[in-house]
Amino acid sequence: MNGILDGLRIVEAAAFVAAPMAGVTLAQMGADVIRIDPIGGGLDYRRWPVTADGTSLYWSGLNKGKRSIAINLGSVEGRELASSLISAPGADAGIFVTNLSASGPMSYASLIEKRPDLIMVHITGSPDGAIAVDYTVNSAVGFPAVTGPSQDGGPVNHVLPAWDSVCAMVTTTAILAAERHRRATGQGQYVRIALSDVAMAVVGHLGYLAEVEINSTEREACGNDVYGTFGRDFRTRDGHRVMILAITPRQWGSLLVAMDLNEAVQAIESSRGIDCFQEADRWRARDLLFPLVEEWARNRDFDNIRAALDEHDVLWGPYQTFTQLMENDKRCSAANPMFQKVDHPGIGRYLTPGLPIEFSEVQRVPAGPAPRLGEHTDEILSEVLGLGPSRIHVLREEGLVSS
Amino acid sequence: MNGILDGLRIVEAAAFVAAPMAGVTLAQMGADVIRIDPIGGGLDYRRWPVTADGTSLYWSGLNKGKRSIAINLGSVEGRELASSLISAPGADAGIFVTNLSASGPMSYASLIEKRPDLIMVHITGSPDGAIAVDYTVNSAVGFPAVTGPSQDGGPVNHVLPAWDSVCAMVTTTAILAAERHRRATGQGQYVRIALSDVAMAVVGHLGYLAEVEINSTEREACGNDVYGTFGRDFRTRDGHRVMILAITPRQWGSLLVAMDLNEAVQAIESSRGIDCFQEADRWRARDLLFPLVEEWARNRDFDNIRAALDEHDVLWGPYQTFTQLMENDKRCSAANPMFQKVDHPGIGRYLTPGLPIEFSEVQRVPAGPAPRLGEHTDEILSEVLGLGPSRIHVLREEGLVSS
Repeated sequence: MNGILDGLRIVEAAAFVAAPMAGVTLAQMGADVIRIDPIGGGLDYRRWPVTADGTSLYWSGLNKGKRSIAINLGSVEGRELASSLISAPGADAGIFVTNLSASGPMSYASLIEKRPDLIMVHITGSPDGAIAVDYTVNSAVGFPAVTGPSQDGGPVNHVLPAWDSVCAMVTTTAILAAERHRRATGQGQYVRIALSDVAMAVVGHLGYLAEVEINSTEREACGNDVYGTFGRDFRTRDGHRVMILAITPRQWGSLLVAMDLNEAVQAIESSRGIDCFQEADRWRARDLLFPLVEEWARNRDFDNIRAALDEHDVLWGPYQTFTQLMENDKRCSAANPMFQKVDHPGIGRYLTPGLPIEFSEVQRVPAGPAPRLGEHTDEILSEVLGLGPSRIHVLREEGLVSS
Repeated sequence: MNGILDGLRIVEAAAFVAAPMAGVTLAQMGADVIRIDPIGGGLDYRRWPVTADGTSLYWSGLNKGKRSIAINLGSVEGRELASSLISAPGADAGIFVTNLSASGPMSYASLIEKRPDLIMVHITGSPDGAIAVDYTVNSAVGFPAVTGPSQDGGPVNHVLPAWDSVCAMVTTTAILAAERHRRATGQGQYVRIALSDVAMAVVGHLGYLAEVEINSTEREACGNDVYGTFGRDFRTRDGHRVMILAITPRQWGSLLVAMDLNEAVQAIESSRGIDCFQEADRWRARDLLFPLVEEWARNRDFDNIRAALDEHDVLWGPYQTFTQLMENDKRCSAANPMFQKVDHPGIGRYLTPGLPIEFSEVQRVPAGPAPRLGEHTDEILSEVLGLGPSRIHVLREEGLVSS
């Protein structure tokens, strides 16, 4: 068995982050993810970051472990071929994921004529189908207004495409739920996920909307202070930064012992009539508490701070650049079974993540490289559509497929 | 049928974001999510934001649509009762999700003695089980070093708990994959998800690690500029901010027409010998391109900008605060079928999100309120464990449960 989804086949026609990241996750669970690529590559085939010779590290990162068939999607015949692939028989096949416009032969209406139990997951920007991307969704939902050290300089965008990343995993969830339903009932369906809905559901779940409606307030920017509890970045004597938190009473107790702050904090508690073992009181008294920890950190080097905080089980972590992450953090190394050094043809050998889920009864699928565009064209045409070599030859001559 | 997961039962013993957000998502797909709450509430029961009288909008947002049983988990008898609930029979039951320490009767080893086909999903901070939370994972993986207008002021944290949100959906994916496996094989399993793995997998998928190893560079902070393409925030004459992007050639063409910039951009292209229809060239020439769009935006009011950009299908979006999101964005209103105005007992009526997935063959589960602590204690003890009223009475008298 090759992963927990061994045998399941998903066809993907997609670009950018959300749908491809869903696909890489399914592939790393053992599914056969067939990516339909336009001949010459889609909209994101050359996206940055790229290697010195222009190969996209972004594209190859998001398409690991998939099979690629390159089809001329600009032609009706090409789209017909794609639709045959999507609707090919098999109890574990007939699942299609796209974030493209999916018109004509690749529309749901056309596809279910060929395969009535098709599951199609269509990711759009907004619920009405209007275009929206991570950046425009994020600007709309409110986070840039409360991110960063102060709002004098205007909004601060996330760099992480957070909504795309959440949407990817909403997509894998939706696929598995719809496939479960099909297994039980024989019924396929059309599944729609709007990126803005993904974001607004999270915003609502976390209470930001209720703050506006119920409290008639909204979250204000508070820099790196962690809202409603104790937490912030602190500078060490030797110029490092560390994130130190105390969210639970136990963590707060640990921090007080590690930094020998019991007495100083008791004085604050007495003067303000508060109990800093209450999370809300730690937040309210942060103007007095932060300077104590600032001073403690400012007078110590990073290595000493690490030792002291670890000894007492304080909740903390270093700030690291991407380079430091790879150099200093063993969680981001081949010592972590999620990671492997993988040879990526045309790019080189680098540390590559597999699935961030460990199933006790199923072995990890080794992280593999992304396919070349059209690397599996012949194999897929033969295996899935049953085409013989001469027919495949004709398709290639007509420019409908390439490999 | 009440949602696509109708009949599936998941028991949750959890705090904070990742596991509860997985639970609310499963509940909104129709699963029966039974939350085991400690009597008096768990670590996050009073987390901010709170209402004027201290009711947590955070807790209620993350526990919508679940059933609550309140058990004294500090006692062995209480943990035994919880373990009976987790391991109760039923083909669609026997799924347990936790991000707590899960020792003693609630450990996997003990639980599978009662139910060998149990699926237990255990969310930890780091893969070795060490504690880590969204804030310490985020500081470690590199994003705060590249977020914000400049790095002179130090790292900039996300405000969104992005990794917890991704992890929530990784968790729902893992549950459905393991349940699919159990349906096929009869076999349960122990499933581990480390929050840091979730983050590092995303960092790897997006190419940040390959940049370090292959290019010997790493991403630098570039404020709100969208890396590798054309995009940034711009200020309007009347003081609004808008995010304007051109990721695809079509979007770039639209922008040029909407802003009448063809001539000015051609001059830039000639002087630099570039083709701004190439994404990478737009990024390289942003020092010259941004001022053109800046000037265009600075000389127009928001309403005119909106009209001009929408007319030409330019990719853009407004920056909104949380209040503006609710006041001005119809995607965040009861006009969007994902949202409903829901009465939350003890809090009030507010706009509440349901599931961000629309299944064509299954009706949406109406967004419901969170339970009171222990609201369903009697019902669950009777229905799931088959206990009679007198036994339940004894359990309450002994302080093992409350309602």
